[in-house]
Amino acid sequence: MSTDPLVVFTPSGKRGRFPKGTPVLTAARQLGVDLDSVCGGRGICSKCQISPGYGEFSKHGVTVHQDALSEWNAVEERYDQKRGLKPGRRLGCQAQIMGDVVIDVPPESQVHKQVVRKAASARVIEMDPATRLYFVEVEEADMHEPTGDFERLQRALKAQWEIDNIRADLSLLAKLQPVLRKGKFQVTVALHRGHAETPAQVLEIWPGLHEGGLFGLAIDLGSTTVAAHLTDLETGEVKASSGIMNPQIRFGEDLMSRVSYAMMNPGGDREMTAAVRDAINTLAEEIAKEAGIDAKLIVETVFVCNPVMHHLLLGIDPVELGQAPFALATSGSMALNARELDLVAINPRAQIYVLPCIAGHVGADAAAVALSEEPGKSEDLALIVDVGTNAEILLGDKTRVLACSSPTGPAFEGAQISSGQRAAPGAIEAIRIDPMTKEPRFRVIGSDIWSDEDGFEAAVGDGGITGICGSGIIEAVAEMRMAGLLDESGLIGSSEATGTARMIEDGRTHSYVIHDGSAKGGPVITVTQGDIRAIQLAKSALYAGARLLMDERGVDKVDRVVLAGAFGAHISPLHAMVLGMIPDVPLDKVTSAGNAAGTGARIALCNVAARREIERVVGQITKVETAIEPKFQEHFVAANAIPHKTDPFPELSKIVTLPNPSFNTHGDGSDGGRRKRRRG
Amino acid sequence: MSTDPLVVFTPSGKRGRFPKGTPVLTAARQLGVDLDSVCGGRGICSKCQISPGYGEFSKHGVTVHQDALSEWNAVEERYDQKRGLKPGRRLGCQAQIMGDVVIDVPPESQVHKQVVRKAASARVIEMDPATRLYFVEVEEADMHEPTGDFERLQRALKAQWEIDNIRADLSLLAKLQPVLRKGKFQVTVALHRGHAETPAQVLEIWPGLHEGGLFGLAIDLGSTTVAAHLTDLETGEVKASSGIMNPQIRFGEDLMSRVSYAMMNPGGDREMTAAVRDAINTLAEEIAKEAGIDAKLIVETVFVCNPVMHHLLLGIDPVELGQAPFALATSGSMALNARELDLVAINPRAQIYVLPCIAGHVGADAAAVALSEEPGKSEDLALIVDVGTNAEILLGDKTRVLACSSPTGPAFEGAQISSGQRAAPGAIEAIRIDPMTKEPRFRVIGSDIWSDEDGFEAAVGDGGITGICGSGIIEAVAEMRMAGLLDESGLIGSSEATGTARMIEDGRTHSYVIHDGSAKGGPVITVTQGDIRAIQLAKSALYAGARLLMDERGVDKVDRVVLAGAFGAHISPLHAMVLGMIPDVPLDKVTSAGNAAGTGARIALCNVAARREIERVVGQITKVETAIEPKFQEHFVAANAIPHKTDPFPELSKIVTLPNPSFNTHGDGSDGGRRKRRRG
Repeated sequence: MSTDPLVVFTPSGKRGRFPKGTPVLTAARQLGVDLDSVCGGRGICSKCQISPGYGEFSKHGVTVHQDALSEWNAVEERYDQKRGLKPGRRLGCQAQIMGDVVIDVPPESQVHKQVVRKAASARVIEMDPATRLYFVEVEEADMHEPTGDFERLQRALKAQWEIDNIRADLSLLAKLQPVLRKGKFQVTVALHRGHAETPAQVLEIWPGLHEGGLFGLAIDLGSTTVAAHLTDLETGEVKASSGIMNPQIRFGEDLMSRVSYAMMNPGGDREMTAAVRDAINTLAEEIAKEAGIDAKLIVETVFVCNPVMHHLLLGIDPVELGQAPFALATSGSMALNARELDLVAINPRAQIYVLPCIAGHVGADAAAVALSEEPGKSEDLALIVDVGTNAEILLGDKTRVLACSSPTGPAFEGAQISSGQRAAPGAIEAIRIDPMTKEPRFRVIGSDIWSDEDGFEAAVGDGGITGICGSGIIEAVAEMRMAGLLDESGLIGSSEATGTARMIEDGRTHSYVIHDGSAKGGPVITVTQGDIRAIQLAKSALYAGARLLMDERGVDKVDRVVLAGAFGAHISPLHAMVLGMIPDVPLDKVTSAGNAAGTGARIALCNVAARREIERVVGQITKVETAIEPKFQEHFVAANAIPHKTDPFPELSKIVTLPNPSFNTHGDGSDGGRRKRRRG
Repeated sequence: MSTDPLVVFTPSGKRGRFPKGTPVLTAARQLGVDLDSVCGGRGICSKCQISPGYGEFSKHGVTVHQDALSEWNAVEERYDQKRGLKPGRRLGCQAQIMGDVVIDVPPESQVHKQVVRKAASARVIEMDPATRLYFVEVEEADMHEPTGDFERLQRALKAQWEIDNIRADLSLLAKLQPVLRKGKFQVTVALHRGHAETPAQVLEIWPGLHEGGLFGLAIDLGSTTVAAHLTDLETGEVKASSGIMNPQIRFGEDLMSRVSYAMMNPGGDREMTAAVRDAINTLAEEIAKEAGIDAKLIVETVFVCNPVMHHLLLGIDPVELGQAPFALATSGSMALNARELDLVAINPRAQIYVLPCIAGHVGADAAAVALSEEPGKSEDLALIVDVGTNAEILLGDKTRVLACSSPTGPAFEGAQISSGQRAAPGAIEAIRIDPMTKEPRFRVIGSDIWSDEDGFEAAVGDGGITGICGSGIIEAVAEMRMAGLLDESGLIGSSEATGTARMIEDGRTHSYVIHDGSAKGGPVITVTQGDIRAIQLAKSALYAGARLLMDERGVDKVDRVVLAGAFGAHISPLHAMVLGMIPDVPLDKVTSAGNAAGTGARIALCNVAARREIERVVGQITKVETAIEPKFQEHFVAANAIPHKTDPFPELSKIVTLPNPSFNTHGDGSDGGRRKRRRG
């Protein structure tokens, strides 16, 4: 009496006995082993490559003989000659099980590939895209059984792939008949499956086996820039990343000025919608060109954006977002197609997914951060801050997540700062001030050399030193505070009071000269009292938002802080804490998440289950509206001091002792300008 | 101990006891009584009007006192003053049950109104349209509960109407916020519910209560004409009917010449698609104007058409329909929106339903005939013939339904006939030939007076007698056969052989002069041998198709014949049978169904369940392809004789004795021209 051969798959460990002659792909499917196949076992797509192992496998209790699999067959020979199989590889649909065998499924043969994210976090994205390729053989048309070609395609997908309930739009139906006949009734279809309850949609069809790949765009649609990652929907690989300025800037630098533009100019919202859609088309064309692919192979696009950009992208007048109660037209996720958004550059049937918004001020970008950083799965209490013109703030752990946005203004991006500029070569991005000599040294973008080191001037080059970017100004203010050039209230001391000639008078206030390039025709880069005030307003808003969430949660400290956003990656945790931007935590508990919103978009692009997940999570997030919360004003005022008027910063105290000068010459502990603001 | 009052609703007979003070609408809903309401019981829509009955109702065992319902309240007073309530009517949402009562629900207050069809058949259409109006009060936006306006609309529809799972496209979302605010968060929505498994879609939204009605178009898209019925989706009333020529005629008179045009001219299919869509827009605008409504209130359109028009409407190249195996791109029903078909004249979110096709030659128009005439529910075996350039033929009863189409050509429409013309004033539509004198008398369209009666010339008027239309030529040929002017084989006898001077020589053949208008500058109207041949080809094709279905069914007679199509209504059953167009049945078993395809479209427009029904029925119909069936040729040849070479016509024999001359002078029982055709 003989027993059927035992097959053990690795890395899954799944095992079972199969009759001799069973193809490996068949065994894998029956055991639920994740082995890819586009052609359905016809030996033409090569996606089901496997590596048999031979010899003793004591771990599995198996001895594998050289004849455990059938001999190479003609299909494998042909494939190897044409494309080349890696040594030791077989085609899973051709190799038949003849004896006990251990079979490894290499990562590239898995459908649910694990893609390591580029970002700092080690989390992986499991590939489970909404759109996949399927090769099918369709019955030829038969007068005696007069069904439509599409109905026979449906039948083939059901019989060969067990996929029921598919549909196609008119533009696909219009090309169906010639493609079917060109492929001799063998075709590859790109099938999109969104929500489980809706029919799968045929997005594209190719004669024969399509080997040109399938791509998606993850787009982070910001107020200032539109950033896209072109992603291979089969492997998860990012083929190209590119950005473009948001052309809406000409209608208004910040969101509220764009809302005003829409309010003041009839049709202004439509102008802005057309502008941003144009830009997305340009971006899609450019990024496809960069990656060397046909833009029509882009069959999916995921958008994350703030609520105003969300409405302007969708063609909805954002006017309600400019006034209380900040009502969104819709907050749910959106499933659209390319035509609805005039995205003519990509596949006309491409499917669009827009992440849900959290609230009128907390958009799909914040939802994407929640998807990427998963505060709702955190064991400890995490504060996640996405720093931009508006800061999106999330606070939470496994028990509960809260969210708000806070109007920090553009100071952190270098705007409204006397020597401020965008992060670009020539901008000071890091600075240190000697507490004894009060002398600064700094580094500019584009060079790793500090200004007091040899070779600095050469490294900076002809462009010279042009200004201070966002991270630079944060460090400058924090260093001035640590060096005793600035008191707790934010007043800059005079040259006499601070003992440095770098302090120059500026009307009734003082400015600190970081760099004087005037001898070479360059700028004099200073930090003025106005700069300090702008940074104080921004950091107070940020801190007050975080505190409001902490109040709501009933805590006065958090376990860790995550700085998200491209800008967040460049902020020095120590300086952020000296400034009082973020609550007091041990320095090693401050991490950067990179562009978490963009990562969230990429996760939603590559994994359809993640879309359901974030829709669920967003419904459970507690929304806190900073604009109407009286305590926000209170927190804002108290957070004006550097680092804070009342909150202790015990962790910060362990590593830094801040000097405690007072440069107030009016004797009232304040100054007119700030007081006015506090009452506002 | 008191008992709750008993309420009996008529005509349903539903009854139940309810606590005093229960509004009648509430009781009706709990009992499942069909009582309409758009405003949901707010006393503003007046759709829930009821008529209480007072006195003894021995049938129901109830005595109704004058105080059985609550007194008129302020809402009813206001409504009555503003709009007027019919005597004895109450608003069901306002009147409360105070004692035993019998309540009649008048037809106009029923949701599922029964609409009597205009056509001959007495069948009624039950109103159950896919799109209905709902008045809802939406919660106002609240900063503390930041959901989107659309999400609050969803919630309101769920709470107030128990409707779950709704969606809206971007164009609706773009108008949602201003409309909600204009209506102070009270709005009426038009909600479309198609297939049960898909979400309901908001097609339109109005501030407050919308009282402007809701309309749909039932369109019969023919090769020659496009006919539309504008229907009130609340009452089922046809507000206007209108037709327009199909502008595709300039690309080809019949379907196959249009298919050829598409094959010969790259982009020709797109030209034809654009032309027909333009025409539909024009028709929609005209019909709305005629009915005095805003065309944007047209929120649904149902199309029925033959397969070639189906593809050209949908923007699919019909080339495959011009050659075996006549593969449709898709045969299933289609749910589309107005934008996909460029129907810009109607509501941009209007929903389009296209009935399923039966086979490559048997279209959605035949499906509509099946929906209207319901052969599958017939107790006796019915043959349904929709006569046109192609004849669609259905044969069936409760056990089984078969369908085919047969290429009759345009002869029945007066084309390819020497004196033929379309049915229009001046065309001879009826003719009788005296068997003794061989003299004709006739009637023309536009007048009821026969040509041998007084006042005929005056009645015909200045336009004169211009030609013969389809029904006229059928009668002319049949009458010639009955008068002995034509033999069984279709040969016209000479003047000598027939004994009438009206027979004139025409080369080697003869023509019969019906009317000589040349003295007044009018035409000489004759029936030529060529005309006879054209009619023979057409009728043979029709009869052969019917016989093929009878073969398939295993019968050699049918119980009844239904002539459908606008043309079918004008055919004289006797003459059709003398000609051998239709199988032999008692004359009173030949009925006309009018424009059954158009009626089918109207049924599908007014009753969403009928769509599911016809989809199911079409799947069960046995399709017979005439083009490949060898027996079709056989039947075609045998049917060339008038009435038939081999089939007996016993029912016809009971009422008509046909003379049996033979005008064959060649001695071979045939003539060259016909033989050639037979072999083709």
